[in-house]
Amino acid sequence: MSGKDIWNDLVKLRQNAPLVHNITNYVVMNISANALLAIGASPVMAHAPQEVAEMVNIASSLVINIGTLSDKWIEAMTLSMRAAAIKSIPIIFDPVGAGATTYRTKTCIDLLTETRPSVIRGNASEIMALLDSEIQTKGVDSAANATDAEVAAISLAKKYNCVVVVSGATDLITDGNKRNLVNNGHAMMPKVTGLGCTATAIIGAFAAVNTDTMAAATNAMATMGICGELAAEMSAGPASLQMNFIDTLYTLDEQQIIRTLR
Amino acid sequence: MSGKDIWNDLVKLRQNAPLVHNITNYVVMNISANALLAIGASPVMAHAPQEVAEMVNIASSLVINIGTLSDKWIEAMTLSMRAAAIKSIPIIFDPVGAGATTYRTKTCIDLLTETRPSVIRGNASEIMALLDSEIQTKGVDSAANATDAEVAAISLAKKYNCVVVVSGATDLITDGNKRNLVNNGHAMMPKVTGLGCTATAIIGAFAAVNTDTMAAATNAMATMGICGELAAEMSAGPASLQMNFIDTLYTLDEQQIIRTLR
Amino acid sequence: MSGKDIWNDLVKLRQNAPLVHNITNYVVMNISANALLAIGASPVMAHAPQEVAEMVNIASSLVINIGTLSDKWIEAMTLSMRAAAIKSIPIIFDPVGAGATTYRTKTCIDLLTETRPSVIRGNASEIMALLDSEIQTKGVDSAANATDAEVAAISLAKKYNCVVVVSGATDLITDGNKRNLVNNGHAMMPKVTGLGCTATAIIGAFAAVNTDTMAAATNAMATMGICGELAAEMSAGPASLQMNFIDTLYTLDEQQIIRTLR
Repeated sequence: MSGKDIWNDLVKLRQNAPLVHNITNYVVMNISANALLAIGASPVMAHAPQEVAEMVNIASSLVINIGTLSDKWIEAMTLSMRAAAIKSIPIIFDPVGAGATTYRTKTCIDLLTETRPSVIRGNASEIMALLDSEIQTKGVDSAANATDAEVAAISLAKKYNCVVVVSGATDLITDGNKRNLVNNGHAMMPKVTGLGCTATAIIGAFAAVNTDTMAAATNAMATMGICGELAAEMSAGPASLQMNFIDTLYTLDEQQIIRTLR
Repeated sequence: MSGKDIWNDLVKLRQNAPLVHNITNYVVMNISANALLAIGASPVMAHAPQEVAEMVNIASSLVINIGTLSDKWIEAMTLSMRAAAIKSIPIIFDPVGAGATTYRTKTCIDLLTETRPSVIRGNASEIMALLDSEIQTKGVDSAANATDAEVAAISLAKKYNCVVVVSGATDLITDGNKRNLVNNGHAMMPKVTGLGCTATAIIGAFAAVNTDTMAAATNAMATMGICGELAAEMSAGPASLQMNFIDTLYTLDEQQIIRTLR
Repeated sequence: MSGKDIWNDLVKLRQNAPLVHNITNYVVMNISANALLAIGASPVMAHAPQEVAEMVNIASSLVINIGTLSDKWIEAMTLSMRAAAIKSIPIIFDPVGAGATTYRTKTCIDLLTETRPSVIRGNASEIMALLDSEIQTKGVDSAANATDAEVAAISLAKKYNCVVVVSGATDLITDGNKRNLVNNGHAMMPKVTGLGCTATAIIGAFAAVNTDTMAAATNAMATMGICGELAAEMSAGPASLQMNFIDTLYTLDEQQIIRTLR
């Protein structure tokens, strides 16, 4: 990972404006769409079983987030993931609240078993729960650190042959062999609802322009952390952080990336 | 269109606080409601088939937006549009993503055929797709300019005997005979998710207080453009633009309108 | 009610980060989640009938808001309320738009009859409509003052043996015997969509750390009013008010509470 690599992906994103298809939760739809627009992508949200395969067909990547799941939506997720696999576009999977209820954990396992994603992104609790369904999560917030989940992340990456991203104060990205760490970010970021879900969407944007999935996921997480840090300097609290974060995604330049990347 | 006309509508809106019933998409519900409140209207969101007709009965206009459509919601849209036609209140229709999938295009044609709206507002791609279902749109963002869609807009206005609004850098408003152009606006506005959908909601507010539908739609689009321009001057990026835009809808006065209108 | 009491609850909230389970409407999910995070709670949104009882089981309070109701969601509300009653955690109920349609009023009565909540919070029209289904509300905005609803609030509190909160310029909180009034707040607050719903969620947070329900509801409403006032001083319009309000929930300290409380 280098500032130059991140910048190259960002330039491609802004030039190509790839269509990122999102089936995500109600809470974060607005911020996810705004973050994708700000970074240079073209977001679309569609969940009707009648249209998801057709929408995937014009998309460059697919983001699946189970945050406010229900049976009808799971059907749409399944259909869209199948279509994405056939079209060979990246699938980014967010197991929100895995471990909090049996329904969530089971839905994740079912979807992951049916269609292999390119990237799974979750917090430490969620990643651990995907591997060991006995682990109990407290709602959608993590009870563990990203590095605590390293062993689980490596096993999960090997099991589904994908990249696993564990977000936290330090983000961990692994394909089961290599490991990248991202140390950018700010302590106030977890106080903004949906920034984790937004990270998943932003990985979808980077994966749409960079076929090296480890690099795309790492560059996306570094961009999240850099923008979070730059935004936090200007912010009195989490709501101004949310606003400044989106503005920073939009205005971010090469010098800021190089200067801020740790 | 004159600054005085726009101001007169705005005064009526703030005095009467008309109830605008919205059946719209998940992504934009919050910003649409906030924009309607800021302009002086009273928004309500309700989509249960059991209640939509009754809600229409206390409303002054109806806004239908298919952005995140599904079968259950289409049923509610159909019932509410029928009720609005019986009560003779304006229906404003937003064909989000028409042309992107067969399901979207077909749903639009079905709804428009069943009940004539007062206004259809879309971007150039969507308006063209409503007339020629062979046209393929890229997600929900337009691949064409508003003026490219002029012929389609005129035909569509004649076909459904309604006003058609094509948003873009220049907005085009036509009833099939007359044509108004709105040149206000700012290049950063398409980077805020849902500002097009918000325009549709704002047309609903103006149409609730001005029975001249061409004038209402034009004044609404001019107000959107003026507030977008004024807000952009204060904004570092799309998220601060969204905030300043809503604030400006709330504080907008006659002098600002007259000074900014092109 | 004293500044010290409010502060004590706030300290507990920030220390314990209680999980607040919300089944709420699409319009306000994002602002409710952000407000709960900012005040120190841990929000979760889940509405699938398959998982709500299990989610309630790890939660410290349950917030039910019928704003964008439909049959499937009512089923989830019923199941979660039953589970909360069994687990004896507080249920906070928001009858959004009661009186606007038969479906809304009937749903409220059914839910309240089936499971007694700890707190009902609504505007004056909604509270009156819960008692007298002949009262017609205009959408989701109140046509009456909080104090107009005092008789209805007392009757309702006695009927369901719960605390009733009527929000308005002055908020009224009653358990049928005692009465608290909160005079903090700002005239621009009703121009922000979902601040009423947010109040309901914030009551959920306070009730999770304070077993005296009258005190918890009063402290929550005072915190809403204080933060609204402090935020309004910095705000040009309703959108900056919304942002500054969330930031203030996050940064609020004891001195600000004591200085601002009326």
